[in-house]
Amino acid sequence: MNPMKVGLLGFGVVGSGTYAVLTRNAEEISRRAGRQIVVSKVATRTPAKAVAVFGDKVPVSNDMAGLVADPEVDIVVELIGGTTLARELVLTAIENGKHVVTANKALLALHGNEIFALASKKGVMVAFEAAVAGGIPIIKAIREGLTANRIQWLAGIINGTTNFILSQMREHGLPYETALAQAQQLGYAEADPAGDVKGIDAAHKLTLMASLAFGIPIQFSKAHIEGITDLDQQDIVYAERLGYRIKLLGITRRRDQGIELRVHPALVPTKRLIANVEGAMNAVVVNGDAVGDTLYYGPGAGSEATASAVVADLVDVTRLHTSDPGNRVPHLAFQPSALSDTPILNMEDVRTCYYLRLSVEDRSGVLADLTRILADHQISINSMMQEQDGENRAIIIFLTHESREGDVNTAIKTIEAMPFVHSSITRIRLEHLD
Amino acid sequence: MNPMKVGLLGFGVVGSGTYAVLTRNAEEISRRAGRQIVVSKVATRTPAKAVAVFGDKVPVSNDMAGLVADPEVDIVVELIGGTTLARELVLTAIENGKHVVTANKALLALHGNEIFALASKKGVMVAFEAAVAGGIPIIKAIREGLTANRIQWLAGIINGTTNFILSQMREHGLPYETALAQAQQLGYAEADPAGDVKGIDAAHKLTLMASLAFGIPIQFSKAHIEGITDLDQQDIVYAERLGYRIKLLGITRRRDQGIELRVHPALVPTKRLIANVEGAMNAVVVNGDAVGDTLYYGPGAGSEATASAVVADLVDVTRLHTSDPGNRVPHLAFQPSALSDTPILNMEDVRTCYYLRLSVEDRSGVLADLTRILADHQISINSMMQEQDGENRAIIIFLTHESREGDVNTAIKTIEAMPFVHSSITRIRLEHLD
Repeated sequence: MNPMKVGLLGFGVVGSGTYAVLTRNAEEISRRAGRQIVVSKVATRTPAKAVAVFGDKVPVSNDMAGLVADPEVDIVVELIGGTTLARELVLTAIENGKHVVTANKALLALHGNEIFALASKKGVMVAFEAAVAGGIPIIKAIREGLTANRIQWLAGIINGTTNFILSQMREHGLPYETALAQAQQLGYAEADPAGDVKGIDAAHKLTLMASLAFGIPIQFSKAHIEGITDLDQQDIVYAERLGYRIKLLGITRRRDQGIELRVHPALVPTKRLIANVEGAMNAVVVNGDAVGDTLYYGPGAGSEATASAVVADLVDVTRLHTSDPGNRVPHLAFQPSALSDTPILNMEDVRTCYYLRLSVEDRSGVLADLTRILADHQISINSMMQEQDGENRAIIIFLTHESREGDVNTAIKTIEAMPFVHSSITRIRLEHLD
Repeated sequence: MNPMKVGLLGFGVVGSGTYAVLTRNAEEISRRAGRQIVVSKVATRTPAKAVAVFGDKVPVSNDMAGLVADPEVDIVVELIGGTTLARELVLTAIENGKHVVTANKALLALHGNEIFALASKKGVMVAFEAAVAGGIPIIKAIREGLTANRIQWLAGIINGTTNFILSQMREHGLPYETALAQAQQLGYAEADPAGDVKGIDAAHKLTLMASLAFGIPIQFSKAHIEGITDLDQQDIVYAERLGYRIKLLGITRRRDQGIELRVHPALVPTKRLIANVEGAMNAVVVNGDAVGDTLYYGPGAGSEATASAVVADLVDVTRLHTSDPGNRVPHLAFQPSALSDTPILNMEDVRTCYYLRLSVEDRSGVLADLTRILADHQISINSMMQEQDGENRAIIIFLTHESREGDVNTAIKTIEAMPFVHSSITRIRLEHLD
């Protein structure tokens, strides 16, 4: 049987990993896929590196438009990143009837609806396992493994950089800036870490998973996004004493009124498996009404870990490309005609639990005032911790029951206006994940 | 579009769960599958229970042969268990051109090669996600999610009954018999628990995963199988003190000489995520050369958790049944013509680490004799613990580096023959899973 011919757009970390895996495991991959999968063409902005690898065995150029039009390419693998040129090239490849594999979460989070609509129209596959949680086959699990379920929620550690930083802060008592510098030295964080530490990368991935889980269009602009840049080391310590670990979570949850879609730091009970995911690893918990909780764990980044997902997509396309396009696994798990218009909830209307840390005057009556204000805003207290903080001062930590975010914000403003409160209140959300 | 018509063979715990999930989530399932999936016929040994559920909406009978021949059935779901009648019915259903979904691990472990060969010949799908690790989509992960990888090994907690018993023994200091009785009271263990506690159920599942991981035929008869019935509570305590937890693992590993295929209790470092899987939950770690370690966790049994996997298979078949049978996901991950004849290793030739517990005379020279005997058998010691055990006696625990099982067994016999050794040696394997 003729080999499947792959055109690589981009030859950076993931592109070279993809070629290395396809080459090293060529025999096993063809035993699985039923035919060989070969790189037939490469286009990259800086061809020198690729030329050094491919020599004259495979044509290498900087002609990306040529690659997506080449009749000798069956599958285009988009690994150039960004959302402008990548969008144009992917749309053109689809127009030309080519299947596409991409690791580009930003592209799909911003332009996925357009891309998948065109792919459905043209009857081609657009596969993106590598776009979420690197080497963990989480897209396949949600899209195919859990199809029996009404998915209730999912929560994931889906950014390895921030998880590494949080692990370092906790294990070695480091402040955020020091842990970030370490992550940069070790190659876990980029020179400009904003996309990771501000939660944007995690939100891209979460938005895609929410679409797969709930059958809704991709709606990145509606995601609530907070990063880890404002996290204080002492809250990690207090959380640990209370039996929790702070993780940057992407959470999406179905409520009667709509869907929660949010990325932010959260306390998670230490006894949960996901709380014990340390370093640059990723994990996603999915709760379905039939199966209950399942968890998927593995490396969320890295050259060959990401390539593992890219190549799995290539095998999927190879196995299934002859199947009837109208009767195939839908790109976003649900049939394109069956997407739902369930709204994404405003963050004010999200309900969850909260960790609140206050510094107050240490005198009788203060606690009574605080609890009254919380009660006035329909916030009930699950547990409380108090400790001396120098003369006449106390640190108070409240863990609340589930409350409405808008109510919590109003209560915080009211409390901060009280004369016995010394500084602004630290508020971190708390997720029991049960 | 016409609904897919499902014939249920058997209506016990999983059968009723399957119907409950298909009914409750009918709308979401058809949005995913592209058409409705309906139970059109039920055949069970004891129809009364099914009649009570279906009334006159769906024909219920005890005519199983009739169901697998019925032109009104597209997919046969085999949930009757056992390996004789189930084999006949499944083979006949395939002969009749029907797709089959089964949760029957024993059937596939014993007759899978025959069943999949016939299915390939007839161009039908035989799906079995529910046969391994219940609701965890581990079959899909290995068969489709990790296809880029040369899989090196996998290790799983794939029997919830025994994991529950081991958790109870550790957490509450119970002896095996008491923990088993609790498991029986709570419905986690059957009145005759042999299939679970002797490791047979785990070996059925492991054998299937080994075939998917390495592209070898299903070879249940070659599996080495030990259960948990001989585990001593004190070894659980010693393991904990040394930083390990004892789990019943199914392990399959590729070596230069062949493939290890074994089920037995093993010490696992407590810091590994899988060591923290407690109660009746399951988890599988898969190590691939590109991705590294990924882990899959969830409920391994239960009515709707297992039904979640059955229904996911129904959706898969519905999505893909029109595709070209020669160009589909192969049943056992590798193309049927591309299976390998790599041998399964004898247990004597397996290499792993060991926990050895001895009761010896407490006098100088004993330790020197012991370590010399171990060294004579190419067994090197990683760490050692010694403690007084009454007057003139000591308990010694050795943790060894990786050694050949045959050498370890010979060394144990030699040591047990020494006059200063008081009783037989307890030997438990130790898996670093790194």
